[in-house]
Amino acid sequence: MIKILTGNIDFIESLRGKRATFMLALSNTKTTNIKGITQAGIPNMIHLTPTLDSEFVCTGEVRSLEGIAKTPKGVPTPALITRAVHLLKPYHAVELLNLGIEITPQISYFKQHTFDINSSDSIDTGANIDAETLFQKGVTFGQSYECQSDYIILGESVPSGTTTATATALALGYDAKEYFSSSFKEVPNSIREKTINLALKNIIDKNDLFDILGSVSDNMLIFNAGFILGLNNRIKVVLAGGTQMAGVLLIINSILEYMGGEIETSNLALCTTKWVAVDEQSNIKALLAMLSFPINAYYADFDFSLTQHPALKLYDEGEAKEGVGAGGALMYGFLNGLNQKEITAQVEEFLR
Amino acid sequence: MIKILTGNIDFIESLRGKRATFMLALSNTKTTNIKGITQAGIPNMIHLTPTLDSEFVCTGEVRSLEGIAKTPKGVPTPALITRAVHLLKPYHAVELLNLGIEITPQISYFKQHTFDINSSDSIDTGANIDAETLFQKGVTFGQSYECQSDYIILGESVPSGTTTATATALALGYDAKEYFSSSFKEVPNSIREKTINLALKNIIDKNDLFDILGSVSDNMLIFNAGFILGLNNRIKVVLAGGTQMAGVLLIINSILEYMGGEIETSNLALCTTKWVAVDEQSNIKALLAMLSFPINAYYADFDFSLTQHPALKLYDEGEAKEGVGAGGALMYGFLNGLNQKEITAQVEEFLR
Repeated sequence: MIKILTGNIDFIESLRGKRATFMLALSNTKTTNIKGITQAGIPNMIHLTPTLDSEFVCTGEVRSLEGIAKTPKGVPTPALITRAVHLLKPYHAVELLNLGIEITPQISYFKQHTFDINSSDSIDTGANIDAETLFQKGVTFGQSYECQSDYIILGESVPSGTTTATATALALGYDAKEYFSSSFKEVPNSIREKTINLALKNIIDKNDLFDILGSVSDNMLIFNAGFILGLNNRIKVVLAGGTQMAGVLLIINSILEYMGGEIETSNLALCTTKWVAVDEQSNIKALLAMLSFPINAYYADFDFSLTQHPALKLYDEGEAKEGVGAGGALMYGFLNGLNQKEITAQVEEFLR
Repeated sequence: MIKILTGNIDFIESLRGKRATFMLALSNTKTTNIKGITQAGIPNMIHLTPTLDSEFVCTGEVRSLEGIAKTPKGVPTPALITRAVHLLKPYHAVELLNLGIEITPQISYFKQHTFDINSSDSIDTGANIDAETLFQKGVTFGQSYECQSDYIILGESVPSGTTTATATALALGYDAKEYFSSSFKEVPNSIREKTINLALKNIIDKNDLFDILGSVSDNMLIFNAGFILGLNNRIKVVLAGGTQMAGVLLIINSILEYMGGEIETSNLALCTTKWVAVDEQSNIKALLAMLSFPINAYYADFDFSLTQHPALKLYDEGEAKEGVGAGGALMYGFLNGLNQKEITAQVEEFLR
């Protein structure tokens, strides 16, 4: 079942039975190299997460890591959920947005959009992104993109992306410190806070919006803000993510304010997981309430209450929560007749 | 399973796995205000039934009635069946035909075709429909309609529509008095008969076919006769209904006779429920036998034998029987792999 965060149910109900392109935005920020800041991946190999996630979603295999089991360890990546839905009710297409990753996914046949973008630096010393150029690349892509499906589900895999999203929102002046999610259950607030504070120090003298974004943000956030503005409501898009996707919307909001523009959002929505929606350590609704445009936002009412698998149970305890478009994937499954039991059983398969 | 009423199974089998647009034709006739003539809705609010049915099919919510539970009371509307199939095997699209209803459904994002049609008057005093103009609106719509799916399932929600269909058939000279169905198990024949007799008295002096239709019929019947003729076999259509949809075919038959035309029906069929097919108080096969063109007609072999819910059991006892395209919806479910157990369980969900 799909539940409402903001707006009403009509937008998402009108997508019932429609075909979606699942688009996965991948980027690396060297912010991940700060010890203990994220658990979104294998220790010391966290930069590989977007690569491995996309390989798994597309092919069911993990290719860019040698000598390691195909199933992830510890807290399993939400890519399991995204892939499970694809096996049961396939997306019409899966496409990758390479927004600056260190290792290119070893995949053929799938469309990999490339934009000559490098992974960004750590925000504690300055992300060093040419934000205006990157944003413009997103706009151009949005203006020219031809969708073969009825709508786009836009997910992301960006390790430590909630940290960069928080820093971005604060740098843009949003009073949002307590509202961002984390892949941790017990959020490592001291490391995270220290990093964000260092990032904010770097922009004290900056006034230009893009200068600020280029210092504290990440490629996924900036590019997708451009992408959505470039689409100009031409194609239906579901932002499949939690507070990071809310971060994309906050950037759009600031850019519109900065440039004096407006956005039509009737074809835009956000859908996240229940783990984000009910999370007591973050507040996605509060983030969305900061926007000066209306937005339909939903969550997929799915949890792992039907499994006994200890690694999956960790989700219900607050670990991982979202990513790789899991909330949007679950929504797509529900809109196409799947139920929690079927999806759970398929995810369990991967961990056998 | 889908069973044959007339013709052979090939047409409907060729639609297995194809995508359908579920089109719901909505209209009000003030005939409903005659006390006791229909039970298709909430007493004193029966005119709201098409509005509520369409809201429920599209969004899963009932919006145009305040302070009342979302699940209908007493004999539940067949919209439950139509929605259940949509949740399990979604139609490719749901579109509404507003053919004169008093309250517009509160729905966004779904296509609502409007034609500037008012609800019609009661047939006992004359329906007061400009039938020729209405018919022509249907023809024009059929000529111009672009279907995004492989075929159309055309359902209806018209309270007291079996009464107007009976009056229409009799007025057109079909010996069909005993052949029309009713949403009642114990048909209120005295009220119904009195109404029909009054309607027939009003046309004693009329000779023009459209004058006759404009006095005794309803908007759904007349418009859809035009719609089907306007389509001219260009798009596959399943008339999802019982004797009312047979009434549409009888009107087409009379118009062709009146105007000296022909119809190619290789892309046209009718599919109703088992409750209509086996009904001893009506005879849809006899109605179809009166047509001078061939027609494939089917019923979905579904009943509520697998439920214990008393409100649903009423269907198996002969109440409600059909409506909101339930027969066509069940057909669509069966053509896409659903079984009776799954559909029953989903309908039961709504009544929890």
